[in-house]
Amino acid sequence: MSRDLVSADHPFGPQTLAFGVFSTDANAPRVGVRLGDDVIDVSTLAGAAGREDLAAAWATPSLNAFLALGHEVWADARAWLTETLGAAVEGADDRRAIPSNWVSSVQPDGVAGEGAGAGAGVDALAAHRHSLEDVTLHLPIEVADYVDFYASAHHASNVGKIFRPDNAALPPNWKHLPIGYHGRAGTVVVDGTDITRPTGQRKAPADPAPTFGPSIRLDIEAELGYVVGGATTMGSRVSVDEAAQHIFGVVILNDWSARDIQAWEYVPLGPFLGKSFGTSISAWVTPLAAFDSARVALPREEGDPEVLDYLRGGEGDGVGAAFGLDIHVEVSLNGTVISRPENRDMYWSPAQMLAHMTVNGASLRNGDLFGSGTISGAEKPTRGSLLELSWSGTEPLTLDDGSTRGFLEDGDTVTMTAWAPGPDGTRVGLGQVSGTITPAT
Amino acid sequence: MSRDLVSADHPFGPQTLAFGVFSTDANAPRVGVRLGDDVIDVSTLAGAAGREDLAAAWATPSLNAFLALGHEVWADARAWLTETLGAAVEGADDRRAIPSNWVSSVQPDGVAGEGAGAGAGVDALAAHRHSLEDVTLHLPIEVADYVDFYASAHHASNVGKIFRPDNAALPPNWKHLPIGYHGRAGTVVVDGTDITRPTGQRKAPADPAPTFGPSIRLDIEAELGYVVGGATTMGSRVSVDEAAQHIFGVVILNDWSARDIQAWEYVPLGPFLGKSFGTSISAWVTPLAAFDSARVALPREEGDPEVLDYLRGGEGDGVGAAFGLDIHVEVSLNGTVISRPENRDMYWSPAQMLAHMTVNGASLRNGDLFGSGTISGAEKPTRGSLLELSWSGTEPLTLDDGSTRGFLEDGDTVTMTAWAPGPDGTRVGLGQVSGTITPAT
Repeated sequence: MSRDLVSADHPFGPQTLAFGVFSTDANAPRVGVRLGDDVIDVSTLAGAAGREDLAAAWATPSLNAFLALGHEVWADARAWLTETLGAAVEGADDRRAIPSNWVSSVQPDGVAGEGAGAGAGVDALAAHRHSLEDVTLHLPIEVADYVDFYASAHHASNVGKIFRPDNAALPPNWKHLPIGYHGRAGTVVVDGTDITRPTGQRKAPADPAPTFGPSIRLDIEAELGYVVGGATTMGSRVSVDEAAQHIFGVVILNDWSARDIQAWEYVPLGPFLGKSFGTSISAWVTPLAAFDSARVALPREEGDPEVLDYLRGGEGDGVGAAFGLDIHVEVSLNGTVISRPENRDMYWSPAQMLAHMTVNGASLRNGDLFGSGTISGAEKPTRGSLLELSWSGTEPLTLDDGSTRGFLEDGDTVTMTAWAPGPDGTRVGLGQVSGTITPAT
Repeated sequence: MSRDLVSADHPFGPQTLAFGVFSTDANAPRVGVRLGDDVIDVSTLAGAAGREDLAAAWATPSLNAFLALGHEVWADARAWLTETLGAAVEGADDRRAIPSNWVSSVQPDGVAGEGAGAGAGVDALAAHRHSLEDVTLHLPIEVADYVDFYASAHHASNVGKIFRPDNAALPPNWKHLPIGYHGRAGTVVVDGTDITRPTGQRKAPADPAPTFGPSIRLDIEAELGYVVGGATTMGSRVSVDEAAQHIFGVVILNDWSARDIQAWEYVPLGPFLGKSFGTSISAWVTPLAAFDSARVALPREEGDPEVLDYLRGGEGDGVGAAFGLDIHVEVSLNGTVISRPENRDMYWSPAQMLAHMTVNGASLRNGDLFGSGTISGAEKPTRGSLLELSWSGTEPLTLDDGSTRGFLEDGDTVTMTAWAPGPDGTRVGLGQVSGTITPAT
């Protein structure tokens, strides 16, 4: 009957406490917290503990109601969950198995027998535990506005060389502001959702006229996505110092991109149909609070311009309010690892992106999502897009099965995973994001 | 006690039947239909008539539930409202006053006395009638995704000359596809909402580095906005021929624009903070079905390229499925009419924009909104932005009070109105959109 709760080296131990939305055959979608390879139904857990405020917010089919409660409630909830869930885990001798008396009341269907077993607190926790294998995970947020940034200097420079070979690799504004644009919120989908190959207009420079058909340069972009809460009003700003109060958590994001469609359409108003057919995010939102051990200073080189004050932020503790995050990403294509982007290489930080996004008075809504832009480093094996990895298709990748890829073929599956250093030598996990390309319709 | 219902030449007569969302001191926000200078509470009207399907959708604080019901229900509802409301209006001798027995039961507060007066049908209508003066109008839709197009060749050409003087006025892709991009849905506001002057980075070409401060080139863009319903799934497309089934109605849209912020930020990913601080739409959504008499063929000149099939559409009845709309717009600044843009001059039609927006498989949600882009004609008095009217500030406008404007000053109020030809010599009205600039914070 006993099964492992969470091992000490599990990236979803109590140091992480990632939030998602799950359902079971018996339960409509509601908020859950991942613990090891289980999901804790925190809506019923909070209800049983008399935390009615949290129970109400978590008994809904997205994180938006919880996001609306603001950073003080997020912190309080995390402290309560850390205490409630962490104590059970640490009670186990080797943190690999939950205490035997802790599982004694767990029935085969994962629901605790009422009145059975040892202490009430332990029983109450077991009653809310579901194996990941028994649940369906859903899009964790109702996406309000989706913004995508362009925060890697290496990526922007590579794209510049490929798309605009006659110009400087980086546009003149690039190191003065985090360039961003709005994407399509309605086509943000959760891990595991198939992506239909998009169709549209494309015209290579040598073509006399545009042609119509399925994209032949379908690509990925490995990014992190930041989930926003604590709505603000129009005309107000969120400073770099305040940004962490509005960034609830982090997802992995795959910004699927049709390079042929994008190249023909994007001048002068930016990417549109080359991106809007689908954006995938992980089912788990890892709280920003879990990344305290992953804060790093932003990389800067001699000659980089000083940024304007509104992008600077206070010094804070060590790395400053405009901290980067040392999150390690891994990208696989049909099981072959094709890249390991390092988020510490990003030029702009999430706090700077949020401060920039609101400096004009634009309001934030609960459920806003912003992407970092492709995470690429200086070295080829750390580039986060096929465009860069295959250098626009001219240097195809070889997969483990011997096949080669410039861009994606129908049936290809791309999976991204990530982790960050946690406290006491632990790892903090992010949910994976995976998607398979289905043929154009 | 008697008051006019609607005069024969009123742009919000039964030929129009624009939808909005209103509240009163006694009533929470719900859907209403404008009739003359009154609002008909169609949620209670439908309930009293036993139309429970419509009553439920209209008893909500946005049009989204009604939009979700799809085009067949929209048509059925319009037919029912035309019969119910139109009969009362036509019963009046000169269509200027409602029948005396029709208002006999209307109390000074606009609520019908129960059981009073003549025939039940008339009484029932009167019971749901509120003067515009007694109601608050709200944002009529919960905006899902907001896309802005760039569909006027005159506007795009003028902007090209001003922003990119060294290049061709129109980008090479411009006459092959309707260029568009996503805007910020969360800052779409209703008529009458003040707009705070945005602050941000700007850098004139001659400046050595960017500076920070309130925008000094704050502008308007006179557009039409199209309200979308009948949600679709990812991977499917809406053709030009099907587009009218997904365009519920039309609003006037003012795409406030900070030209200095926009000019510095927009290469290479498009406008972002130069636009995202606020977009105003009218409180009334005039159904597309009201514009049957305003359909016109799109203007094309010798040498314009043939468009790809997916942007063509069938011939339909006369002007084809890719019809334009002959909507006349008037733009006032502090009471001085500064422009009269003509929507019949637009190069791309709303059906083409919608077909393009979905050709890559992007899904539609109920409450999606897309703007036409600035409506500008060939002649200066028909240009829809100050950028064009003052030619980037070099040819200031003189207002009736003798003051001049290159761009907007604090306290300026911009109001846009519009109408189209209706059946039998009537005019079909669109709601006004107005906004006043408040100082930067």
